[in-house]
Amino acid sequence: MRQRYQLKQRPQRSRSYDSEEHERGACEWCEYALVITLATILLIGVSALTIFWTFFYREGYGWADDIPEKQFNLHPTLMIAGFITFSGFSVLLYRICRCFRRIYVKLLHAIFHALAFPCIVIGFLAVLDFHNKKGINNFYSLHSWIGFVAMGLFGLQYAVGFFSFLLLLICNKGTANFRASLVPIHAAFGVLTFVLGVCACLTGLTEKALFTLGADRYSGLPDEGVIINAIGVAIIAILAVVMYILSRNKFRADARDMRASVDL
Amino acid sequence: MRQRYQLKQRPQRSRSYDSEEHERGACEWCEYALVITLATILLIGVSALTIFWTFFYREGYGWADDIPEKQFNLHPTLMIAGFITFSGFSVLLYRICRCFRRIYVKLLHAIFHALAFPCIVIGFLAVLDFHNKKGINNFYSLHSWIGFVAMGLFGLQYAVGFFSFLLLLICNKGTANFRASLVPIHAAFGVLTFVLGVCACLTGLTEKALFTLGADRYSGLPDEGVIINAIGVAIIAILAVVMYILSRNKFRADARDMRASVDL
Repeated sequence: MRQRYQLKQRPQRSRSYDSEEHERGACEWCEYALVITLATILLIGVSALTIFWTFFYREGYGWADDIPEKQFNLHPTLMIAGFITFSGFSVLLYRICRCFRRIYVKLLHAIFHALAFPCIVIGFLAVLDFHNKKGINNFYSLHSWIGFVAMGLFGLQYAVGFFSFLLLLICNKGTANFRASLVPIHAAFGVLTFVLGVCACLTGLTEKALFTLGADRYSGLPDEGVIINAIGVAIIAILAVVMYILSRNKFRADARDMRASVDL
Repeated sequence: MRQRYQLKQRPQRSRSYDSEEHERGACEWCEYALVITLATILLIGVSALTIFWTFFYREGYGWADDIPEKQFNLHPTLMIAGFITFSGFSVLLYRICRCFRRIYVKLLHAIFHALAFPCIVIGFLAVLDFHNKKGINNFYSLHSWIGFVAMGLFGLQYAVGFFSFLLLLICNKGTANFRASLVPIHAAFGVLTFVLGVCACLTGLTEKALFTLGADRYSGLPDEGVIINAIGVAIIAILAVVMYILSRNKFRADARDMRASVDL
């Protein structure tokens, strides 16, 4: 009862993450800073490595009819940027921006997904057009099936999230219960979309290595093979760090504030 | 305070999951039964489908020098059995056996992992020996790198779990705090191992489809290609169902019992 009374007396605090940060121990702060820094380096690094791979080994990008391979190169780069880098940051925002007001975190979450959206659409169109130009069938491989489901879930999550957590704020109090009940479902499907994106990227990298290098060259592990594997390992490391951060309750905004928050 | 007092009065209840089951709503029970049934069908089905694929399209199993391909066939079957079927059941046991005493659930968890262990070891030796017989390099592909990490984590988790949650029960009270602090770490790394197993299986299936069918036949999506993709889709469905079950707090044993449990 005492706790409830305290929360009622401080409605403003319940809408932000700024309370009791000073109570966190130095050790916890060190761990938090280390893990968030590692996640940031990996998320930016994996896209940088993909761009390096494309320019150094695959002749860069393009959208011309004469060299469709350059057009294909947009596919891995944009899909990794969309499904891993931008989506990864978007998922982690709720752990990174603990001292922001919740509405700002939500807007940033929407903006990062809005950055991921065109990446995924253009990345998809790039490979579709490449296949059509080269006369290759579409949607036959396990990679394409996983990618298709991941894209569908991404679109659905974005539509539901935008409608429920931003548009419905027009009627804040009336929709609070509905939005609160939707949060765990949106979060669970968000993590699933991210994991599916990871699976699509890993199967795609495996396909690309075998198509481009061929089994014989790949088995000799040339420099390009190491780079492709390194991109895959970085994606796995991102998955591990993101899952670790999400599993640590201490990395959440203060639990008491979370329970009291009506600004879901 | 009142809640704490109540828990002290009922020490026996705190060690099992049998309390207040009758309070769960019919709707929640329906959802629970549906999801657990779906998970069971998928977990058994994916191994059954792999065995069907091997016998119908890949000439079954063997460990003879004249047909090393039959020996290779043990690799996907045993790895899917170990990393997906047995590990999946082992992970879900804490949600399936809610009315068991915790020590029995732990023993079942250890037994399912003990069944997965030889599958993974023999599955690994099968492909290693196949590569050596055929003169193919080992550990060059992204699939093998992911699989290697997944196997390492599996072994580490098994050793830590066996030592901490079973052997240390000899000194139950003295090690309760240590074991309690280890639970979230063991659970997080357990889920990571499972997800890595999924990633290894998916990249492995992609490799197998391209090696066996070749890009041209695979792109025509023959029956065998559909079967390989279906195994991959089943693994993805298992991942989705397992993540859904783990994310639903209502599927846990009663939260109050969990907090009170010292038998970690």
